[in-house]
Amino acid sequence: MEHTGDGSRFVLVAGTTETAQRDGISAAGADPELMVETPAADAELLAYGRPVRTEHVPVSPSGCPTPALVTRAVRELLGFEATVVDGGLAKPTAAPTVTVGAGVGRDIAEQDPVPTAHGAFEAARQFGRALPADELWLAESIPGGTTTALGVLRALGEDAMVSSSLPANPTEQKRAVVEAALEASSLAPGDAAAEPKRAVRRMGDPVLATLAGLAAGAVETDTPVTLAGGTQQLAVAALVRHGGYEGRLGLATTAYVADDETADLRASAESLSLDLTVTDPGFDESDHVAMERFVAGEAKEGVGMGGALALADRAGIAMAEVRERFAAVYDDLLDGAVGESP
Amino acid sequence: MEHTGDGSRFVLVAGTTETAQRDGISAAGADPELMVETPAADAELLAYGRPVRTEHVPVSPSGCPTPALVTRAVRELLGFEATVVDGGLAKPTAAPTVTVGAGVGRDIAEQDPVPTAHGAFEAARQFGRALPADELWLAESIPGGTTTALGVLRALGEDAMVSSSLPANPTEQKRAVVEAALEASSLAPGDAAAEPKRAVRRMGDPVLATLAGLAAGAVETDTPVTLAGGTQQLAVAALVRHGGYEGRLGLATTAYVADDETADLRASAESLSLDLTVTDPGFDESDHVAMERFVAGEAKEGVGMGGALALADRAGIAMAEVRERFAAVYDDLLDGAVGESP
Repeated sequence: MEHTGDGSRFVLVAGTTETAQRDGISAAGADPELMVETPAADAELLAYGRPVRTEHVPVSPSGCPTPALVTRAVRELLGFEATVVDGGLAKPTAAPTVTVGAGVGRDIAEQDPVPTAHGAFEAARQFGRALPADELWLAESIPGGTTTALGVLRALGEDAMVSSSLPANPTEQKRAVVEAALEASSLAPGDAAAEPKRAVRRMGDPVLATLAGLAAGAVETDTPVTLAGGTQQLAVAALVRHGGYEGRLGLATTAYVADDETADLRASAESLSLDLTVTDPGFDESDHVAMERFVAGEAKEGVGMGGALALADRAGIAMAEVRERFAAVYDDLLDGAVGESP
Repeated sequence: MEHTGDGSRFVLVAGTTETAQRDGISAAGADPELMVETPAADAELLAYGRPVRTEHVPVSPSGCPTPALVTRAVRELLGFEATVVDGGLAKPTAAPTVTVGAGVGRDIAEQDPVPTAHGAFEAARQFGRALPADELWLAESIPGGTTTALGVLRALGEDAMVSSSLPANPTEQKRAVVEAALEASSLAPGDAAAEPKRAVRRMGDPVLATLAGLAAGAVETDTPVTLAGGTQQLAVAALVRHGGYEGRLGLATTAYVADDETADLRASAESLSLDLTVTDPGFDESDHVAMERFVAGEAKEGVGMGGALALADRAGIAMAEVRERFAAVYDDLLDGAVGESP
């Protein structure tokens, strides 16, 4: 096989926001302490297929495995290039990472939760301009990220609602957090319209800032970009649109997000003029334990799962093969390790 | 193609020592200022095939291109996994890097030139223990590294002499630097025998410390290790041997280093019980400008060139094909850019 560094390149931005430490906001970890490690572990799973410096494969409190295992499974089948960018990690990762100066994001109800947003946006933009690729697929891992995404959308004046890693989206809680955060930043909804860096610094997280910079840099140099993920990527798209870019931009997500009635992703994607790709991995056709929590509505997306599924589909790989590989990755790493404690 | 993260994994440790700033020590850069950037650029060339954050493809003052282009050419042909570890970079790189806490190395005539050596060794060791691979190929990029390698060999009491990136090895200058450095560290030759971490901290550089840690961790967990490089890798092997490891250890280098009479690599490899592989890329069979400086005795090795050639050879790829790809990589990046100024 030839390996020229071009072709499709997957870029995972992994980072943290302390917003995730609020009770009931995220299911991206078995408990709040482990949740802080989730992005570092996701990066290792994508890069190496197993935890290396981190100690656990991330699971939700009920045992739903991280979508990183799905993305990894597709990567093992397709062999696409994957690059991890440090979007404000709080724990060390053994995954090789590109540095853009992003620090840990603080709770969005603080007055200046992402002081590194401007610098990370600009460094990511330069990186996105120079990174060789025929097309970029941008992915995220950040527990609590749908809440900060909602914060950014409101600051920009966008109506979109966000989805959740929990089966029951804590919509009212998110709205209340965002309302308090807007007040703490002395912003009314829409006050940061056309000011994407201000919106993400005051109401967002370092991963959104980094992704928006990467996307901006790539589209400036005519590299096709697909935002791989759910409603967090709507916020990235909104940041790019409010930065003045009106060209083509893709969004690839899972059927779980697209079918989430608390969000209405399709309408939001249309209002942001995104080319939407929805892929259903057909986990309901399996009775494997790795898939049953997804079918129950957990996780839904993350670590570019929807993008990885779209890449597999485009390459003619049947979803049955993706499920088989996902089950194998899960069995290798987690079989017997989940669901044993009460 | 399948991509499971195992198989042969190439790990490049890229870093710096201020020892390289002494006149006449290294040819790993067009001038001392650009030399500081060489490891960051080499990492980008290995990862992406072109400079991304750095501005120049490293060349020697006479225009010899960095051996990173050869390693990259083989990577394009074979598609092996490559991971970059930050072994004390002084300039930002866009290559994704693993962090082990290595800082810039100071001049070895200072009293404590590598204060991060112990920490980097241990973090690299843990990483080497956990990193999934069927076999590891360890490579380096550090201008001035043969001088610090000589320092480590002397501190350990090993007689081996080192090679050079210059056609005329400045042997006497290196010996004088090492003698002064031993004095500054209050060490007589052999005083750090069986104390590898002390030897590399007082007389070495952060790349040697990191490589020795990686190799130690890998061999502890029975992962086969090949040290890919020239006489700098002799110092790594000596550090591993003085740490008490007596098992199999490979060394893969180029014919240019093996044939360097100022070094006598073969004898040193034998005395350290290394399984030596020497590969001749046959650059003398080409009249391409990319190869003529190698034929004239410049560069000789670096960025795992000898290991990459050995991997290609083992995979049945003819050296003519390697040369062709190397020429293509060079033409793409450097044609017309070298040799224009007087």
